[in-house]
Amino acid sequence: MTYDNIAARVDAFRAEMKQAGLQAVILPRTDPHLSEYISDHWHIVRYLSGFSGSAATMVITTSEALVWTDSRYFLQCAAQIEGTGIRLMKEGLPDTPSVTDYLISTLGKGDTVGLNGLLMSIDATTDLADSLNAAGINLRVDFDPIDKIWPERPAMPADKIFVHDEKYSGETSSSRIARTLAETAAAGADSYFTAALDEIAWLLNIRSNDVHCSPVAASFLYLSPKGSTLFVDNAKLTPEVETHLEKAGVATLPYSSLISRLPEIASNDTTVLLSTTSASGAIRSLLEGRSIVAASPVAMLKAVKNDIQIANVRTSHIRDGVAMVRSLMEIEKAIDSGNRLTEIDVAEILERNRRKGDLFYDLSFDSICGFGPNGAIVHYTATPESNTEIHPGNLLLIDSGANYLDGTTDITRTIAVGTPSDDMRHDFTLVMKGHIAIATAIFPEGTRGAQLDAMARMPLWKEGKSYLHGTGHGVGFFLNCHEGPQSIRLNDTLAPLTPGMLTSNEPGVYLAGRYGIRCENLVLTIPFEETEFGRFYAFETITLCPFDRTLFDTSIMTPEEISWVNDYHARVREALTPSLTPDEQAWLEKATRPIA
Amino acid sequence: MTYDNIAARVDAFRAEMKQAGLQAVILPRTDPHLSEYISDHWHIVRYLSGFSGSAATMVITTSEALVWTDSRYFLQCAAQIEGTGIRLMKEGLPDTPSVTDYLISTLGKGDTVGLNGLLMSIDATTDLADSLNAAGINLRVDFDPIDKIWPERPAMPADKIFVHDEKYSGETSSSRIARTLAETAAAGADSYFTAALDEIAWLLNIRSNDVHCSPVAASFLYLSPKGSTLFVDNAKLTPEVETHLEKAGVATLPYSSLISRLPEIASNDTTVLLSTTSASGAIRSLLEGRSIVAASPVAMLKAVKNDIQIANVRTSHIRDGVAMVRSLMEIEKAIDSGNRLTEIDVAEILERNRRKGDLFYDLSFDSICGFGPNGAIVHYTATPESNTEIHPGNLLLIDSGANYLDGTTDITRTIAVGTPSDDMRHDFTLVMKGHIAIATAIFPEGTRGAQLDAMARMPLWKEGKSYLHGTGHGVGFFLNCHEGPQSIRLNDTLAPLTPGMLTSNEPGVYLAGRYGIRCENLVLTIPFEETEFGRFYAFETITLCPFDRTLFDTSIMTPEEISWVNDYHARVREALTPSLTPDEQAWLEKATRPIA
Repeated sequence: MTYDNIAARVDAFRAEMKQAGLQAVILPRTDPHLSEYISDHWHIVRYLSGFSGSAATMVITTSEALVWTDSRYFLQCAAQIEGTGIRLMKEGLPDTPSVTDYLISTLGKGDTVGLNGLLMSIDATTDLADSLNAAGINLRVDFDPIDKIWPERPAMPADKIFVHDEKYSGETSSSRIARTLAETAAAGADSYFTAALDEIAWLLNIRSNDVHCSPVAASFLYLSPKGSTLFVDNAKLTPEVETHLEKAGVATLPYSSLISRLPEIASNDTTVLLSTTSASGAIRSLLEGRSIVAASPVAMLKAVKNDIQIANVRTSHIRDGVAMVRSLMEIEKAIDSGNRLTEIDVAEILERNRRKGDLFYDLSFDSICGFGPNGAIVHYTATPESNTEIHPGNLLLIDSGANYLDGTTDITRTIAVGTPSDDMRHDFTLVMKGHIAIATAIFPEGTRGAQLDAMARMPLWKEGKSYLHGTGHGVGFFLNCHEGPQSIRLNDTLAPLTPGMLTSNEPGVYLAGRYGIRCENLVLTIPFEETEFGRFYAFETITLCPFDRTLFDTSIMTPEEISWVNDYHARVREALTPSLTPDEQAWLEKATRPIA
Repeated sequence: MTYDNIAARVDAFRAEMKQAGLQAVILPRTDPHLSEYISDHWHIVRYLSGFSGSAATMVITTSEALVWTDSRYFLQCAAQIEGTGIRLMKEGLPDTPSVTDYLISTLGKGDTVGLNGLLMSIDATTDLADSLNAAGINLRVDFDPIDKIWPERPAMPADKIFVHDEKYSGETSSSRIARTLAETAAAGADSYFTAALDEIAWLLNIRSNDVHCSPVAASFLYLSPKGSTLFVDNAKLTPEVETHLEKAGVATLPYSSLISRLPEIASNDTTVLLSTTSASGAIRSLLEGRSIVAASPVAMLKAVKNDIQIANVRTSHIRDGVAMVRSLMEIEKAIDSGNRLTEIDVAEILERNRRKGDLFYDLSFDSICGFGPNGAIVHYTATPESNTEIHPGNLLLIDSGANYLDGTTDITRTIAVGTPSDDMRHDFTLVMKGHIAIATAIFPEGTRGAQLDAMARMPLWKEGKSYLHGTGHGVGFFLNCHEGPQSIRLNDTLAPLTPGMLTSNEPGVYLAGRYGIRCENLVLTIPFEETEFGRFYAFETITLCPFDRTLFDTSIMTPEEISWVNDYHARVREALTPSLTPDEQAWLEKATRPIA
């Protein structure tokens, strides 16, 4: 039996609610690892509402069904839920109540709200329970009827796990576990439980294919000096992986046995550390009274790449730069010869050229190719419906990246199709001035990204312009394209920019209905000098690909800014030329000629 | 009877401890208002140790006496306590235990520590009590034997209070009380208690002379919609002030009756708001169970100056600029004619010229005049022992300010005595590049000072230099020279830079044993423009006094930076010339000629 429309699915869900005696249920769009990217198995909100955006919370009551999402998705969500009877709740608008406030105003004393407690963080669960309880409403955190109302629910991913070779990762799993347990002890705990898929992949030097564009393996990990346990489906293991885990002192148990077995496994330890970012309220309840909640001890260790990883990052970026140069040349030639490419064509060119590279594993995220007004939509991904033909007279924004066995890339270039207008060149140059301010920053030990963020924005701010996303995010190593703990953004994460960290540098500006501009390279924090005033660090730009020379307005650039562009382009040329054909070399030579 | 040496004073104190059954006592260097600047009556640590620095905590046990202070005061404290047997505890060094850790390691279970609970903030008191109790040590918060062991203790200041005219403050006391009670209600409380002297002065439009360089009146204020009460010594009141307070609906009670009367006064209200920054643990205990602790509702209201205050700030800065120009000219002439001025002479010149200005009330802090190596000591104040003769070949750093009835000033200029070296000009120009970056910043609504701070530092950071103080602090209006909630510094105070706020802009650099440089103007946050990206704000530089033209190295400045200096100097000339004599006009004309 299948439910072939949204209304029938919601009705089936309501029948389960009724049987369980619930007056409302909260469905957060995440997985038991609190991931941003989730496998099809966990696309419950999409199944029940039709909305496929990456930020959503659905609420179903006995009489209403609603989806909360943020401003990025107002238009998309409205279109996708049209005709279903589901109500769009626009987060962030003054008249929109929070999920909690909505429930309190709708339900009565003694009513009960259901939730699968694995899908909500500890803090959020505590806040929700406190608010509901204060209003006389109960919260039940073990309500999970999805298998019953989704007959064709995709299975959990069954791809095999493979070992990520130490020649790439630069450190044994045993060493990473030991360092994590040392940090755990320093935080006052005996053991550490993590549901964060990228932490587990990093800790155990394992990878798989369980999340779109994220080479992780669905699992939970309990680390203890007395013996560690990985909760993972048996079908995902191979003899090689089993031997590898054994060597690291890690036993395995089935993924689905987490709830039933964790309390017993953890009973040998007095205090279990749970991380604020990845542990759910359900896990905390399981360990009631014996857990402390703090920042993940792994985040900082994982963010600081070791020397072998850094060497690998550099070589993978040469390969990625070659693929970018080939793609940009191919796009330019196609347009010059009058071929009308679409945004999806561009994404395919990028993917084809990247796939040819050694050690390529997968894209690190779905390519964003936005032409003209589409480029001004920050989280745009071309669909068959939106797919636009590229023609001279506007800007094309291309944000793309790959996961290679030896590194993760993430690069954005904005290119002029045809001759750019003065406005386009002016705005592009403002963005590049901010980009260069970050690229050339020098800063003392202890500096956080939030201290540098405004330098990327000031050239735009001075003209009353701005961008609403962060200037930079941490980047994983053959892992998630977004990782913490550092970032370069308005709000402070308190994580200092430490040598070995890889962070994006991506200011932009978006003019609704006209065009979008973003210029993104990855930068590595490196030691700079030590003086009587202390240790100073710098950024080394790692990404290797020219910016569009025709978009610079040198009349508003300082001599230092112009030199930075020319020096960077010379570095790009030198690094990539040996891997290019003569034709490509000629294109790159032209693309990297000095601006003046 | 007097105790004529430190040891005798400590012995007398120990006798009181013994009688009270205490094994240790903590003596924080502050007053019951948790002030940074305190009246002589509260200089208990100085009386018992000899140390006069502004940051100190003294601990006396049955066998030891110790003083904790920070790195600014290591040398001064060591010198002042030499021979007393008191131990210097260097805060911030890895081997130095905190006061709490010291007590726990020294005392035994069942021992009791004494404290005057009015002298420690709520959070600090709670943390201290929790830590001591966990170690089985008791804390008593009502131990105050100082009157007994300090026969010549200075009385509380008895200067009369006076009304600060509405033509200066721009708002009635009733209006300020009403706005504060509205914020109090929004924070979920019925009434507000404050011990912060500058808050009380602002709220009631009253001033006095109770703290060195701070025109405040020692008092506590309880604000309630049901009637407000000022706890203040009767001797400080005049008929005019009594009428003024009555009009604002504020009754008075003796200062010393706070502890005995507050619980009864507050009994009409259900919830009392206490501010994290000014309320002490003792006050919280008094209101046990009925207080909430949060950010002061007054801080933000007080920081945003109204239009009348802003107009007054502008005119008081013309008077202060005139006094500065006269002083700089007088100093230059004296040195040129071969007179050897000392640092103290310079401070006296500044004070004499300021005192001549209309509406002058007092200095806003003790002038800092540091020549050569003394300028590199950030909190230097010349003493008869340190007082140095000024001679050609080095830099003179002058940080000074005044309280006028119509505004508070705070300005730092660094001037070359004789011909400056290339290093001096280079370093001065780096500091000015940072100063100009702040002065010309444009930023969207909601921006906090911590986001801008690094822009002031980057020119220095790029050469491995730095400064350890904040870039900017809030400035009061005929009130404290330092006030919150906004600041421009490494650590985030979360208070957005809001139109009407007056903040200092004072980057610097300090080369130990050589010279110090600091360039400080006050800047007013003003609206700049509103675009599709939101509201943007700018800084207007309010301080009017030339920088030393001979110290600019224009070869490392951008054309925009050079223009900023020339435009600023033209503004200074235009604003001050009408108030100057022909000689002074000629001096200023020369001092403000364009640099190129």
